[in-house]
Amino acid sequence: MSSTTPQHEPVAEQPTPDHPASPDSAGSELSAFVGRHIGPRDSDIAAMLETVGYDSLDALVDAAVPQGIRTQTALTLPAADSEPAAIAELREIAAQNTVVTSMIGLGYYGTHTPPVVRRNVLENPAWYTAYTPYQPEISQGRLEALLNFQTVVSDLTGLPTAGASLLDEGTAVAEAMTLMRRASKTAADAVLIVDEHLLPQSASVLATRARSLGIELVTGDLSDPEALAGGRAVFGAVVQYPGADGQIRDWTELAETIHAGGGLVTAAADLLALTLLRSPAEWGADVAVGTTQRLGVPMAFGGPHAGYMSVREGLERTLPGRLVGVSKDEAGAPAYRLALQTREQHIRREKATSNICTSQVLLAVMASMYAVWHGPEGLRRIGEQVHAKARYLHAALTAGGVEVVTTRFFDTLTVRADSAAVLAKALEGGVNLWAVDAEHVLLSTDESITTADLDVVLDAFGVSPVEAPEGSVWEEPFQRTSDYLTHPVFNTHRSETQMLRYIKSLGDKDFALDRGMIPLGSCTMKLNATTEMEAITWPEFAALHPFAPHDQTVGSRRIVEELSQWLAEITGYHSVSLQPNAGSQGEFAGLLAIRSYHLANGDDARTICLIPASAHGTNAASAVMAGLKVVVVKTAPDGGVDMDDLRTKIDKHRDELAAIMVTYPSTHGVYEETISELCELVHEAGGQVYVDGANLNAIMGLARPGDFGGDVSHLNLHKTFCIPHGGGGPGVGPVAVREHLTPHLPNHPLDALAGPESGVGPISAAPYGSAGILPISWAYVRLMGGAGLTRSAEVAVLNANYVATRLREHYPVLYAGETGLVAHECILDLRGLTKETGVTVDDVAKRLIDYGFHAPTMSFPVAGTLMVEPTESEDKGEVDRFIDAMIAIRAEMDDEASRVMLRNAPHTAVELAGEWEHPYDRMSAAFPSGPEAKYWPPVKRIDGAFGDRNLVCSCPPPEAFED
Amino acid sequence: MSSTTPQHEPVAEQPTPDHPASPDSAGSELSAFVGRHIGPRDSDIAAMLETVGYDSLDALVDAAVPQGIRTQTALTLPAADSEPAAIAELREIAAQNTVVTSMIGLGYYGTHTPPVVRRNVLENPAWYTAYTPYQPEISQGRLEALLNFQTVVSDLTGLPTAGASLLDEGTAVAEAMTLMRRASKTAADAVLIVDEHLLPQSASVLATRARSLGIELVTGDLSDPEALAGGRAVFGAVVQYPGADGQIRDWTELAETIHAGGGLVTAAADLLALTLLRSPAEWGADVAVGTTQRLGVPMAFGGPHAGYMSVREGLERTLPGRLVGVSKDEAGAPAYRLALQTREQHIRREKATSNICTSQVLLAVMASMYAVWHGPEGLRRIGEQVHAKARYLHAALTAGGVEVVTTRFFDTLTVRADSAAVLAKALEGGVNLWAVDAEHVLLSTDESITTADLDVVLDAFGVSPVEAPEGSVWEEPFQRTSDYLTHPVFNTHRSETQMLRYIKSLGDKDFALDRGMIPLGSCTMKLNATTEMEAITWPEFAALHPFAPHDQTVGSRRIVEELSQWLAEITGYHSVSLQPNAGSQGEFAGLLAIRSYHLANGDDARTICLIPASAHGTNAASAVMAGLKVVVVKTAPDGGVDMDDLRTKIDKHRDELAAIMVTYPSTHGVYEETISELCELVHEAGGQVYVDGANLNAIMGLARPGDFGGDVSHLNLHKTFCIPHGGGGPGVGPVAVREHLTPHLPNHPLDALAGPESGVGPISAAPYGSAGILPISWAYVRLMGGAGLTRSAEVAVLNANYVATRLREHYPVLYAGETGLVAHECILDLRGLTKETGVTVDDVAKRLIDYGFHAPTMSFPVAGTLMVEPTESEDKGEVDRFIDAMIAIRAEMDDEASRVMLRNAPHTAVELAGEWEHPYDRMSAAFPSGPEAKYWPPVKRIDGAFGDRNLVCSCPPPEAFED
Repeated sequence: MSSTTPQHEPVAEQPTPDHPASPDSAGSELSAFVGRHIGPRDSDIAAMLETVGYDSLDALVDAAVPQGIRTQTALTLPAADSEPAAIAELREIAAQNTVVTSMIGLGYYGTHTPPVVRRNVLENPAWYTAYTPYQPEISQGRLEALLNFQTVVSDLTGLPTAGASLLDEGTAVAEAMTLMRRASKTAADAVLIVDEHLLPQSASVLATRARSLGIELVTGDLSDPEALAGGRAVFGAVVQYPGADGQIRDWTELAETIHAGGGLVTAAADLLALTLLRSPAEWGADVAVGTTQRLGVPMAFGGPHAGYMSVREGLERTLPGRLVGVSKDEAGAPAYRLALQTREQHIRREKATSNICTSQVLLAVMASMYAVWHGPEGLRRIGEQVHAKARYLHAALTAGGVEVVTTRFFDTLTVRADSAAVLAKALEGGVNLWAVDAEHVLLSTDESITTADLDVVLDAFGVSPVEAPEGSVWEEPFQRTSDYLTHPVFNTHRSETQMLRYIKSLGDKDFALDRGMIPLGSCTMKLNATTEMEAITWPEFAALHPFAPHDQTVGSRRIVEELSQWLAEITGYHSVSLQPNAGSQGEFAGLLAIRSYHLANGDDARTICLIPASAHGTNAASAVMAGLKVVVVKTAPDGGVDMDDLRTKIDKHRDELAAIMVTYPSTHGVYEETISELCELVHEAGGQVYVDGANLNAIMGLARPGDFGGDVSHLNLHKTFCIPHGGGGPGVGPVAVREHLTPHLPNHPLDALAGPESGVGPISAAPYGSAGILPISWAYVRLMGGAGLTRSAEVAVLNANYVATRLREHYPVLYAGETGLVAHECILDLRGLTKETGVTVDDVAKRLIDYGFHAPTMSFPVAGTLMVEPTESEDKGEVDRFIDAMIAIRAEMDDEASRVMLRNAPHTAVELAGEWEHPYDRMSAAFPSGPEAKYWPPVKRIDGAFGDRNLVCSCPPPEAFED
Repeated sequence: MSSTTPQHEPVAEQPTPDHPASPDSAGSELSAFVGRHIGPRDSDIAAMLETVGYDSLDALVDAAVPQGIRTQTALTLPAADSEPAAIAELREIAAQNTVVTSMIGLGYYGTHTPPVVRRNVLENPAWYTAYTPYQPEISQGRLEALLNFQTVVSDLTGLPTAGASLLDEGTAVAEAMTLMRRASKTAADAVLIVDEHLLPQSASVLATRARSLGIELVTGDLSDPEALAGGRAVFGAVVQYPGADGQIRDWTELAETIHAGGGLVTAAADLLALTLLRSPAEWGADVAVGTTQRLGVPMAFGGPHAGYMSVREGLERTLPGRLVGVSKDEAGAPAYRLALQTREQHIRREKATSNICTSQVLLAVMASMYAVWHGPEGLRRIGEQVHAKARYLHAALTAGGVEVVTTRFFDTLTVRADSAAVLAKALEGGVNLWAVDAEHVLLSTDESITTADLDVVLDAFGVSPVEAPEGSVWEEPFQRTSDYLTHPVFNTHRSETQMLRYIKSLGDKDFALDRGMIPLGSCTMKLNATTEMEAITWPEFAALHPFAPHDQTVGSRRIVEELSQWLAEITGYHSVSLQPNAGSQGEFAGLLAIRSYHLANGDDARTICLIPASAHGTNAASAVMAGLKVVVVKTAPDGGVDMDDLRTKIDKHRDELAAIMVTYPSTHGVYEETISELCELVHEAGGQVYVDGANLNAIMGLARPGDFGGDVSHLNLHKTFCIPHGGGGPGVGPVAVREHLTPHLPNHPLDALAGPESGVGPISAAPYGSAGILPISWAYVRLMGGAGLTRSAEVAVLNANYVATRLREHYPVLYAGETGLVAHECILDLRGLTKETGVTVDDVAKRLIDYGFHAPTMSFPVAGTLMVEPTESEDKGEVDRFIDAMIAIRAEMDDEASRVMLRNAPHTAVELAGEWEHPYDRMSAAFPSGPEAKYWPPVKRIDGAFGDRNLVCSCPPPEAFED
């Protein structure tokens, strides 16, 4: 189906046959989908404009967005597709991929996603449209699933505390490096020794990270660590377990040696192997990292998948990323919430040593559900099957006179052979193997490999099947003897009916976009349209190995290519790398590119990164990771960058100035008039301008960072480009740069097409990061077209200004531009009200739950405030409902009994059924806005501090839930 | 992937690579899926057997099922597939279908299912696993959606009362015939005159029905009805509007003439055409029927789709099928429920003139959501587009010198041309047209047709595009002037976010299998596994036109063929027809086969059908429809057929005996020992034995009706074979017969492969009925294998006997076999308790809602009882939870305050928040079994009688919901 106008129009004034009925008369140039994506109808837009005081969207936008930065031409993007046409085009692209059986391994394995999990989690808006569980009272379902995830990781690795997921195995290894560096008592110049059998992409990601942090890596054979370190102190060791070559090695002695020197040991371990193998904790590892992909999560051409990390006792508080813990609610009932949030980058800012923000919740939930579905005996059986398949190959190859280099293995064999010939022969039979070099083939078995596949492999090596010996090929000390997954949750849900009900009961506890508005400032919780979501679970996209031969992945590469071009056009940059699989990684990649650029120019001294005080915490953390020093620029009284302070700081650091990092519109939700001047000042001093694209939704089609002075930006595809938040991940954070920075983008050791040869190395494990979900953003752009994207931004701005206008008489709106307008979000200042009434932002946030809303962003970027971002997808009815709730809550602050109600919020149904000793009635408490579509939180307000004092981060025993 | 054992087993004792880990050690011969389908684990089965008093499943089954009917050999079915292997096989089969653009029309049209509806309704267990809304308090969501459906039909046809869907257009036409016959005041020998342009399959279905009822049809040109009727009285006329040839005719005069003679007029009308055309009501139709397929429901190779019927004032009470109406609950709030249930066949029994039972709720919900999504202006725009496409073709053909026979059209043209040549040429371009005869081509446009498709058509006719004139081709009186879909529900949900939330809010009101057990006796609410459901939404199965050339439908025909063979094997019959799209239609087909067989043997007098008193109401209604006379056989005190009465009745009617119709196991849930004797007695008298297969789930693999004496059975694929109930349909009711009845199975006028040439004619509109959902049952059999199906039946019997054993001390269990065992369900007799305590079955059913359960079947087959069928899919935990709830309710009956609570049940959350003047506390009322996974009914007990007195069957104005 073509994207161009049909040649013949049956009737000039009729809708064209190729485009289905428009749901709105929103404008003849807009595709029908625009009216599905955008909430307000034309008539609503007119009414809202009247409230805000403008005649037209154009007039509003002209007043809000500084003229100096406005683009003068429309975006050059393909004409918008209808939904059926976009799906047809995606099917065509999917058909350009070739799905064969991949036995490449290297961290990516075939797996069977339990259909009940795919349909009811991955394809269910109740799960995929949820936000990060910062409001735990409305997130108990996914918090329980994440606690299950942590329990799986903790049980299998034997290390007591596991986080709620990391981005991938490669970055998890890198995070382990910095964790060990922080936790080790060794000298500042101590080195990290690295297993030569670490997965190649992990080794490269590690190298990229180590380079910018000035950490020295020594890679080699770890059997004699002291020799390898050449006498230097060792702060840590990283081993792959089993090794990338397939070999299972005994690291007990290594651990003893490293510990003796004050260092720590990290095992990058395969969780499925651990169902049969002695756990890393049992041989002395302090940290375990890896991926949970093979626990039912499709390979998806590299991602997204949930990486993991677990640590021994004493290291809990050094864990990067999110950690779910058990606490209790006000009624004393057990309740889950994020634990130890003080560690998080948005709080620690420049003290942070990790910039991990978004995790991979949706995928972690899937992996945890896989474990719930199979249970310990099921996982063990799958482990045994996978091992049996490898044994089958090993026996036949050995019997056939082929040399198998690997002697003690779980699922992976290194085989000496003419790799080109063997790979070609195997591919004829529909199986991908991996060439280590001309003379060595690597292959891995997995859950999905059939006997027929195995025989294709044997045939490729020219040998015949033989009867394999029983049992495993490793000796007793390697055998797993400890239990895992003994908690009832892993031993109950075996029938599909049980599993379905378990998933449903968890989903029902949570509030996601399918119930109502999630007006989170800076998070852009907009529509994740079904048409956008559809392709990601098609096998053609979901079943690709990231290292499959290029000619098998033509379709997915086309998605990457086209989406990159479109994002470059939208942002005004030259090139885009889609590798960063979170906004934080995009920041890191962008800052690395700047640093690398300065270094290439001989500007070694340029290491200062200016960051406004209002910046998102990840900014500072990313700068530190990229080897830069953070200098904070003050905020002006109007919320913008204090230009005088900026000039002062630039002058002071003129020769060391590497970059400034600004968000546009600002994190205060304001279009700063000074942005062009700011860019000029920095450029003039030899610095680069990093424009954080978190708020791109407010300028799409209206202004382009690459035009108004940015040298680099990262975007959040999970904000502006409709990738769902998944309850706290996945994210995608592409980095876009001007031409001079293009040579400094990320690349990948295993995929020459994935970045410039001169690049900074990989910053994610997979060549294209979360390639599997790029069809979502591709579809969004394809469906909206340039005019639709522009309209999106305009209506987002209108919705925010409508909220600001209607709420201004009830709550002070903290910042606005010179014309009194906000951008796409607005900050409601509760500090005065709190002083006056004692009602806090927390109280308001929890009370909103009673009204059936997710709270706005709390205390960011300013403590004591709420930041509201309605996005363009919320319709006027829902926005009004929210405003009315906020006004009603404002009135509740004025009366003592209602203040008690605010402090007691949220109210549960169980509470309603019990004794009632409050100075307000049940109806006001529970149904402040009527019974329709009432959401019931399963717990009352949660005591986070209690949980932090009594840290429990794996499944609590059932008795904990007894009265 | 092959279904045979893999050639090489890597390790003998390991699970084979082709089969994933078994979730249970349920027996090495059983596939892993069996452990997912069946609820109880092996250890549970052992514990439950102990409770029931047997050592093993075999011992239980030996005791329960009469030895005389047990099969001695295992079922001969393909070895069970794993889930991934079954999906792979289905993909292979899907690839044997060829999807091209079908412009065949004839009642089946391309349409775009709104993705948000497909994902959140058709692919969402909350919708597809729900049961028929007999318990309205827990069904308000789908009842609202059905009321929307009724409003769509009523608004577009202009007739005030529409039912909640019929099976398809063909049977709707047949139902209209009998409705008109009942409602007309004309003489008994009055005829029905039938438009020669009625859709051919509707005409054939009508003829099949008329034949057995002895109604005379006169088909021809209705422009002079009196001439056509040849002077005979006319009780009704049926016209197609627009005609099957595409022509729009003015039927105003016809209606006047027929009405003058005391007859009625039915319009078989295209709802999409009615967005632009004068409604049937406006030109005088009394009844409108048709299909709602093109409102967003995939063609699916013929079905399922929702048929519709609407009627003028005064005919409401004659409507066949289900009707949703507005009533109020005990708190006075508006509430929906099925209206006028006294009309239904299960109550009217042999007085019924329709056997419609299951309707097409899931599809009706989809069609209603399509209307909610597009609204009146959207539907009109789609109508205009479709018409514009036809005008485009008409203009170009006419300009090109091709004769278009149709002059006044909406979307369909009859064109004079060499049909073979044109069809072949169009197909080269990927478009199916229809050959009326050698010299006439029929073609229809639809929502999905693109300009490219239209140009393929023009090219096939050898003409070039021209500019089409604007506007429509019909004159003023044909234009629609009346409004439709003015209710707010059709004018609110335009953005996808709004639509998603509307669907979610409705789904959240309902209780389906995703929340808990639905222990409905005789309904077999078991697992509808995701793997079984997956293929039905693949385009290869969903996008096929039922009359597409055979070589395009090879895959779907393979499904039909294989499933037929497997069902024949399971039932012990010779042949199976999958055409009946509901159990009721299967019954009708089976009885027609018997009647046809007797007639073929010259046994014209054999018209008596014996039916036991306990039979399902449809049995009697179907017999009447098949031209048989019902004679009731008494029930013995033990609940079985009274054999003495049977002998008496046989003796009395020996020469007229056509058949006996029995259910096995009986509707009392008992294996009657006398079944073999019963069959012998009937056969000896020259009668045929019809074994109703509704309860086949209790004997699958244990006994075969075709072996123990049945001549014919119908099965319910939506019971035993895992097609979900969809909230009240679709159903599939194949009929299976012994060899001598095979020539008398249904066939189809437009598909020679769909039945024997000597068949009784079609009984459904589509050749293979609900072909689109057959992959569900195919997958079930493929995944279970013979051993798995047998195990299913065994565990179903165990679960029922476990319930009976544990509840027997609290409630009398009404019937049991000679060994004290029930079959797969048990009847709890509350009559004594009701007398003693005043607590009725209704009270218990509604109280179960407070406990989080769907009620068992109420007062069927015995008034004042509850029939419980746990099925094999419910795990022991859930069954125990149900039993415990029933025991707790029994205790509640003993105390006066709790009796008030039972009478007030169910309790809503709103009630809890208000004043409380009950003699029991809120906690006991609302959380009798704790807070976990609490289900809240949105309304209190509904007053059905109030609604029947004040009949409102379309969307009430919003004010109705104000306090």
